[in-house]
Amino acid sequence: MDKAKRIANKQKQISISEFFEKNKHFLGFDTHQRAVITAVKEAVDNSLDACEEGRILPEIHVEIKRLEGGRLELVTQDNGPGIPRDSIANVFGKFLLGSRFHAIRQTRGQQGIGITGVVMYAQLTTGSTTTVLSKIETESTAVRVDLALDTKNNRALKSNEERIPLEEWFEESGMESHHGLRIRTVMAAKYQRGRQSVHQYLRMTSIVNPHATIRLRVIGKNGEIIDEGEWVRTTNKLPRPVVEIRPHPHGMQFGTLQRMLKNTKERNVKSFLTKEFEKVSPLVSKKILGHAEIDEKRRPSGLSVEGIQDLLSAFMAVKIQAPPTDCLSPIEELLIKKGLEKAIDSRYAATVTRAPTVSQGNPFQVEVGLVFGGDLPSDGSVEVLRFANRVPLMYQQGGCLLTKAIESINWRPYGLEQTGGKGVPKGPAAILVHLASTNVQFTSEAKEAVADNEEVHAELRRALFAVGRGLQSHRKRVGQRQKSRDKFDLINKILPEIASKSSSMLGRPKPDLSPIITKIMNAVFCEEETIWNAKEKLAICSIKIYNYTARARAYTIIAKWPEGEKISIIHESMKGQRETIGLRKWRLDAINPGKMAEITFSVGGLGQGDWKEAEVFFRGSGEIIGCEKLDEVLVKDMKRQESLKEMVEDFEEELENHHTPNENVGHVNQISDQVEDFGGDFSKWVRQGDE
Amino acid sequence: MDKAKRIANKQKQISISEFFEKNKHFLGFDTHQRAVITAVKEAVDNSLDACEEGRILPEIHVEIKRLEGGRLELVTQDNGPGIPRDSIANVFGKFLLGSRFHAIRQTRGQQGIGITGVVMYAQLTTGSTTTVLSKIETESTAVRVDLALDTKNNRALKSNEERIPLEEWFEESGMESHHGLRIRTVMAAKYQRGRQSVHQYLRMTSIVNPHATIRLRVIGKNGEIIDEGEWVRTTNKLPRPVVEIRPHPHGMQFGTLQRMLKNTKERNVKSFLTKEFEKVSPLVSKKILGHAEIDEKRRPSGLSVEGIQDLLSAFMAVKIQAPPTDCLSPIEELLIKKGLEKAIDSRYAATVTRAPTVSQGNPFQVEVGLVFGGDLPSDGSVEVLRFANRVPLMYQQGGCLLTKAIESINWRPYGLEQTGGKGVPKGPAAILVHLASTNVQFTSEAKEAVADNEEVHAELRRALFAVGRGLQSHRKRVGQRQKSRDKFDLINKILPEIASKSSSMLGRPKPDLSPIITKIMNAVFCEEETIWNAKEKLAICSIKIYNYTARARAYTIIAKWPEGEKISIIHESMKGQRETIGLRKWRLDAINPGKMAEITFSVGGLGQGDWKEAEVFFRGSGEIIGCEKLDEVLVKDMKRQESLKEMVEDFEEELENHHTPNENVGHVNQISDQVEDFGGDFSKWVRQGDE
Repeated sequence: MDKAKRIANKQKQISISEFFEKNKHFLGFDTHQRAVITAVKEAVDNSLDACEEGRILPEIHVEIKRLEGGRLELVTQDNGPGIPRDSIANVFGKFLLGSRFHAIRQTRGQQGIGITGVVMYAQLTTGSTTTVLSKIETESTAVRVDLALDTKNNRALKSNEERIPLEEWFEESGMESHHGLRIRTVMAAKYQRGRQSVHQYLRMTSIVNPHATIRLRVIGKNGEIIDEGEWVRTTNKLPRPVVEIRPHPHGMQFGTLQRMLKNTKERNVKSFLTKEFEKVSPLVSKKILGHAEIDEKRRPSGLSVEGIQDLLSAFMAVKIQAPPTDCLSPIEELLIKKGLEKAIDSRYAATVTRAPTVSQGNPFQVEVGLVFGGDLPSDGSVEVLRFANRVPLMYQQGGCLLTKAIESINWRPYGLEQTGGKGVPKGPAAILVHLASTNVQFTSEAKEAVADNEEVHAELRRALFAVGRGLQSHRKRVGQRQKSRDKFDLINKILPEIASKSSSMLGRPKPDLSPIITKIMNAVFCEEETIWNAKEKLAICSIKIYNYTARARAYTIIAKWPEGEKISIIHESMKGQRETIGLRKWRLDAINPGKMAEITFSVGGLGQGDWKEAEVFFRGSGEIIGCEKLDEVLVKDMKRQESLKEMVEDFEEELENHHTPNENVGHVNQISDQVEDFGGDFSKWVRQGDE
Repeated sequence: MDKAKRIANKQKQISISEFFEKNKHFLGFDTHQRAVITAVKEAVDNSLDACEEGRILPEIHVEIKRLEGGRLELVTQDNGPGIPRDSIANVFGKFLLGSRFHAIRQTRGQQGIGITGVVMYAQLTTGSTTTVLSKIETESTAVRVDLALDTKNNRALKSNEERIPLEEWFEESGMESHHGLRIRTVMAAKYQRGRQSVHQYLRMTSIVNPHATIRLRVIGKNGEIIDEGEWVRTTNKLPRPVVEIRPHPHGMQFGTLQRMLKNTKERNVKSFLTKEFEKVSPLVSKKILGHAEIDEKRRPSGLSVEGIQDLLSAFMAVKIQAPPTDCLSPIEELLIKKGLEKAIDSRYAATVTRAPTVSQGNPFQVEVGLVFGGDLPSDGSVEVLRFANRVPLMYQQGGCLLTKAIESINWRPYGLEQTGGKGVPKGPAAILVHLASTNVQFTSEAKEAVADNEEVHAELRRALFAVGRGLQSHRKRVGQRQKSRDKFDLINKILPEIASKSSSMLGRPKPDLSPIITKIMNAVFCEEETIWNAKEKLAICSIKIYNYTARARAYTIIAKWPEGEKISIIHESMKGQRETIGLRKWRLDAINPGKMAEITFSVGGLGQGDWKEAEVFFRGSGEIIGCEKLDEVLVKDMKRQESLKEMVEDFEEELENHHTPNENVGHVNQISDQVEDFGGDFSKWVRQGDE
């Protein structure tokens, strides 16, 4: 027999279940320690997604029991919308069945793989079925069913299906909710504490999902409690609903466009472009088709391969607005700082949220936080905390684009050690990176590392440069202050002491030292100190301006403070004025030579460590050591950005009250476009501070 | 409508093709640079696998042309067995169709994904079909067909299928072979040179596949040649055919065992165990069932969940021989050194091939090579070269188990810099790691990084420790020699000079210094030097023994040299004897006090840089500085291992001549078991040298 035929005869179709059974490591089931983290992650991600979709404040309980023979029992319970009886088998027993695969919006799950992988792993390693108990609101009873996987045919095998009365549901779920989902499974796995653990995963999850209450209990073989955690929600406000959008023309794939052209119901290419894409107005559509030299009246399905190629080129050549941002849900500044928990003891914290942009038709947005100093260990690598779509990434740090972006930057000018100017830097710092995207491209189904992508990499670098520059500028300020403090010590303590000693020795009155000091210093100094008043739960900021020049000085002093929804100024030593969001100004009329003026103000609504240093600026002539001149152009931009943000927020509130997204999509987009036009990220500001 | 039902209604089954189209980065198509490497890799891996299976010496041509619009045309041609007409559409157009998915033996491809991914990527990014031209030996014409993918249904769409006369096949293929495969495709991609490039991929592939001839040509838009490469085969011997084996009981998964029990045709568990598993003799089977307390006569499908659990426990409790090794194909020492090409200019090279072992029922084997010194750059990280089943891994270094194993070792005691005693070490070294396995568990379909696995990690660490210890011992030897050389310089040059000057000043005859030197030194020294004679292509080793003690000394000197198929000793200054493979000994009868004895021998069949330092040992009383006493236990083991290897080799030759694997499997296994029983890895030896 021919060799080729002999080989060909062995060809066999494999089912997707068989494929994942053999490649369970693709799904995150490579080691026993990781298996339980993956299982919890899949269940909790699903619960959070379902609650968000159902607009329910999530309550999630995770219970793990150690069993004999290296096995664990895992029970997860939520108060989500539940799953209708007829869908349970598909959701848990069929790979590649999902509701979000084709949708363009930010969700945790997308592929329809995760939880089926858990059922599969349990069956493969222990032969156990997975029990699902589901209660949906519109039914008076819950349903319970045991599920196994028919691997050859990629479908679930149900057994023991039964209806459960409401009281039993309440009792078993341990909740008072009329809807929810409970999953029980047994798998070969190992519970461990540490940096890569269920505990850490849930903690990180709760930080970036402050609207969720999460409980963990781990029980040993003898019923003893091995580990526990409770993270109660800190806000009752659900994340803004993410809106599903149409594709954006930028970075569209040939094949995707070809398929859209073939399947569209639109009768000509012009309306095809305006109806099926974001940000393509009739005018833009006209421009695109003009550039591609395609007749507006052409039937979409009639375009040739060359025509499609021309259309793609035109997409990139014609100016098209950035995609709408309401399909994304960033973590935002305060949560990033909370995520970098150690920030509480560290000396410097900065965050940058970049404006959304687009890669391969998918909107995405990056956020970066950096904390430095304090109690952070200075002898090892910087701690890297990675998040994608609000999900913490615990594994595959080395192979992840988020890490690679950090490694690609030369951190040495910013004050972190780094061998050869690349790699993860060393020093007392922690860096948080979040990628929010309608399509996070992971390196594998386990969703632990982000795959290479040039646009995302570039955005990450921009954000990291910005926090780096902020750090550098902070270190410079700290250095300057130290120097001026040394000078003060010399002049304010030693000179007067010499003067008093020598005058008493000579029996003469003590001379006025101000003119001498002024002569020596010939400069204006600024000293800033922010302290935490634990009793009153206030952050108190003091700004002192020393005029050691020969003439009187007048300034407007501006301080940057973390203004926010519940964060406001409680007292101030002199009446100030709001300049724009996060900027307050005070008028100092005349500080005479040799004199000092002080401004103090206290801020309420913060937690300890949330704010530890005010950036101080001034308006006026000359220079102030330890204080930069305010950049008026940036203030103007900030004011503009604020007014736009208010518009968006007002609208969002409206949206939340009358949840009819489709009609209003146009409006939100319009506003957020204006924000986008501005550029709208704080990184410019941070960068400016440094130059 | 109920929220739960609303969500459930959106559920939709996705086809595997749609899944991979959206997740093309899983397959290695994340960036344009990587896309072309991935495409070449998939085609070349398939060619090598097919040639190996068809027992054909591979000839592979890769041609890449730059086209307009960021596209490349890729053509690959081989002389493999070809693909029968009826199978072409399935091989290229259907995901998860493959011949090797369930087979337990070492192959490059396994999943039936790779080449279909290439067809998909080409279509998605350029709308192009992929043209396949196939010629199989038993047909008089070739067949040509254009293939597109029907993504929704995971199948190929054929067009323009036609028969091609033989002459046209010869002309188009550019080969004289009567069988082979030609693939032509156009994709959005970017050709670049460098560490991660097609050129580098093919070069590395040719090194570990010396039986293949590979050619590369890259042509620019104007027909100019941008890049070229030709790697001609250096051996006509095909790799040993890897034999398909049955599963091994160790690390068997519950679910897998359950399925085997259900599907077996054996009528009782005892024969089930002996027939369906490797290394389960009737005696072992009896022991296993005794331990599990299962009646030998039980029907396999009748076992309960607990019974299966007991059986699994018994698998681990009862002593079972390691799996057969003929399902694996290691790279082996000389190729590893060639892989570490820079070895040619480096001062030290060591390799360790561990004996095969088993993880989750899959036999695997690790090999490690390390080169150090010479021209290697000393300021950066050590270069890491990763291979899995003879395929070079170019991406995802950070997320790969092979890298993690290197990072987990504290290299500082072995003389490499390393911050904090972990991470990739720094210094003038390169490390090659090869994992050969019947089931390499990659982190994703792109097969670029190996997933976490405790057993593989442990084996890798053992091999790395061994080369590390070898390096440490080399550095110690170098240090000692330097010291003794300094002492020689002092005594052999300065003392005689003083003596000759003072005797000439005093007009007296020069005294005999030997007794004085002997008195000062009171030790025996060994100096070894291996040089390369480029003219005669010989490595010449000189061993000098200096006796600076008060009495005559006699030793047997033993040198380790790279004995091999074509590597032999050409001359020697005195008649030596073969001790065992790679060890030669010479008898030095009496070296008088103050005298030196020299042994030189030359070795032919090596390339420059293949061998640069002989390890020298001695038998005799006392100590020799710069030379270790031979460990007799290890020599005995080496002799035993050699005779077993010869048996295996003889048998393999037989096997090669009469290719009827099934009858003979038992025999090979038996022999290789004995090798396994011994432990059979050289690491003990290396380790010993250091203690």
